[in-house]
Amino acid sequence: MSLISVHEANKRLRDSNKVRAEDEVAELKHCLGRVLAKDIVSAIYVPPADNSAMDGYALRREDWQSADKAMVVSQRIVAGKPPAPLKPGTAARIFTGAETPQGADIVVMQEKCRADGEQVFMDSVGDIGANIRPKGQDVSQGDTVLKKGHRLRAQDLGLIASLGFRQIHVKQRLKVAIVSTGEELVEPGDRLEPGQIYNSNRYLMQGLLESWGFESVDFGITPDDPDVISDVLMQASQKADVIITTGGVSVGEEDHVKAVVESLGHIDLWRVAIKPGKPFAFGDVQGTPFLGLPGNPVSAFVTALVLARPFLFDCQGLGDSEIVPLRQTALFEKNGSFRQEYIRVRMVTEGVEVFEKQSSGVLYSTSWGNALVVQKPDEDIKKGQLVDVIPYVLFN
Amino acid sequence: MSLISVHEANKRLRDSNKVRAEDEVAELKHCLGRVLAKDIVSAIYVPPADNSAMDGYALRREDWQSADKAMVVSQRIVAGKPPAPLKPGTAARIFTGAETPQGADIVVMQEKCRADGEQVFMDSVGDIGANIRPKGQDVSQGDTVLKKGHRLRAQDLGLIASLGFRQIHVKQRLKVAIVSTGEELVEPGDRLEPGQIYNSNRYLMQGLLESWGFESVDFGITPDDPDVISDVLMQASQKADVIITTGGVSVGEEDHVKAVVESLGHIDLWRVAIKPGKPFAFGDVQGTPFLGLPGNPVSAFVTALVLARPFLFDCQGLGDSEIVPLRQTALFEKNGSFRQEYIRVRMVTEGVEVFEKQSSGVLYSTSWGNALVVQKPDEDIKKGQLVDVIPYVLFN
Repeated sequence: MSLISVHEANKRLRDSNKVRAEDEVAELKHCLGRVLAKDIVSAIYVPPADNSAMDGYALRREDWQSADKAMVVSQRIVAGKPPAPLKPGTAARIFTGAETPQGADIVVMQEKCRADGEQVFMDSVGDIGANIRPKGQDVSQGDTVLKKGHRLRAQDLGLIASLGFRQIHVKQRLKVAIVSTGEELVEPGDRLEPGQIYNSNRYLMQGLLESWGFESVDFGITPDDPDVISDVLMQASQKADVIITTGGVSVGEEDHVKAVVESLGHIDLWRVAIKPGKPFAFGDVQGTPFLGLPGNPVSAFVTALVLARPFLFDCQGLGDSEIVPLRQTALFEKNGSFRQEYIRVRMVTEGVEVFEKQSSGVLYSTSWGNALVVQKPDEDIKKGQLVDVIPYVLFN
Repeated sequence: MSLISVHEANKRLRDSNKVRAEDEVAELKHCLGRVLAKDIVSAIYVPPADNSAMDGYALRREDWQSADKAMVVSQRIVAGKPPAPLKPGTAARIFTGAETPQGADIVVMQEKCRADGEQVFMDSVGDIGANIRPKGQDVSQGDTVLKKGHRLRAQDLGLIASLGFRQIHVKQRLKVAIVSTGEELVEPGDRLEPGQIYNSNRYLMQGLLESWGFESVDFGITPDDPDVISDVLMQASQKADVIITTGGVSVGEEDHVKAVVESLGHIDLWRVAIKPGKPFAFGDVQGTPFLGLPGNPVSAFVTALVLARPFLFDCQGLGDSEIVPLRQTALFEKNGSFRQEYIRVRMVTEGVEVFEKQSSGVLYSTSWGNALVVQKPDEDIKKGQLVDVIPYVLFN
């Protein structure tokens, strides 16, 4: 079992991945965070016709003569109603968003106009095209505005709506089973007996999966019993696209997950050069991909972000889930090790502060701050140096 | 109507705000993105007792003599079961997460041990305390781990679970009414007649409110008819904590929202020095705060992020929603104006690229990229200069 880098682990996970979420048609209003299954190609021009960017008067530029020469107002054009062609030599009262009439080539904002009965005086007019939003300015017919594999944000929903689509093709939400293993685990709300601790990984993992837009299928806590573990993993392989366990994959004789997964599919224990993070296991349960995260909550958190997340987004059909770290000033120093370290930090105005207890047992370290510093193997961090920082929100 | 800065607009909104979400008790597993209504104070130590960080052997450091001197293994301690006190002069087989027995002060990892029947040889042992996670290492009894007003992330749910809480006090989700005004608007999926455009603001606003964790109450499109607008706003004031409209608040005679809100409460039209963004209105409808965003989708988007978001999070009870922009290299140049500009950009490895069409009519500009550059009033941006950038994800 040789040591592999984080990069190599990500590559192996991606290369071995055969799961792809299916396509489905969904209502656009329910698609925040969903992944496009097809390109979005516009069937229309947006805007569909030239329209006014202002409340004012539409006219032909060359028909205006001077500030003291009134023009007849020949029509009134409100948004939502098609205008008549502009009567030559006249102006049209027009409101924001209304289509400009055929024959007009400029809109003069009303602040520069003085209405007088059926006439209007204009102090000055601008250049041809002023205050007109031309047809197709935003999107042309046939334009591909969003690509397959894109994860939808609020503004994307707005853009797709502006093209008239009420339903779109998206990837089905990935179903991810969560199995917590550990004889010492008790659910929050229950009484803690000597030797026991509360199960935090279940909540941690559910929260991460929810923030990533996946559907989590929770299988609760399984005791350290091979038969029970086997039953649960079989069920999980039926109900989910991917199985994630926490705990139970180290080398100790009380860790039964390895043997069970081996009997139901296959499993590899990886020595990934990541801290916190070992042990990490990858395999399948009757063909369903299996990720075995460490039981330690901080290690589970970091491996979920760094190893599970890119794999799951790949299964989900996301085009690109790579995160580009920011460069910020370290306000601390820390020697490197042979493993890539993910240091729990807090970004402040001056740079990046470190949480003093970096023990992998300290889950509070992940809540205290708002980011991880990525420390490459064998690289020391000196105070004042620029380091790679990933704010937690970038993992969402 | 004098011009006010973005900073001043935010301050006025905050100062005038009297709405605060009520408290409620909720299941922890449904609390991702929710805001704490009370501090989280631990009633227990985490871990509750000293425990082993490794699979190995627990002993008293001074009882080990040399690598060729075996020690008797007097008990086997698995996670979840309380150990007996350590028999003097012996070692205990122990697994990760199991409580260390009274009398032991070190755990030797099994890789350094060789078991031989009921005995074990250890090549070397570390310092006292090695491989033991001390009681309370993560959290002490009485520690405040998260403050009232904090918005919960996945790791926070894990941390709270580790303290044994199954339910917590959170703020009720803020209910925000969305009203789209504009005679020219048609819902996606319907047929577009001449003069009409599709309503994108509804989808945009729903998406933003969802990503912020609020409950949106949608009132669809209202025509430019004062009676209908009045009915809808009255209903909205009953059903929601805050009302947001898009469109209908400029000075033109077809913009009826202003007069209606005035008759039902009060309204101020603000000239905020923001681009894109004007016009912006603030007031109340029978006591329910009212935010009038521009009808133009890009302006609606920017004012929603910059003006509405901090106000809404304040209503929601969030302690701090301020965003600290990143500093990145501009790969473009652009002269400033008297307004604070929010430039739609894309962050790439080398810096920040600008979208060429910065017209507020171009909604695609918001989807093309992944961030906004904040250009202060009267400041020019030169190529190669550091600028303030806010990735869209930071607005979530």
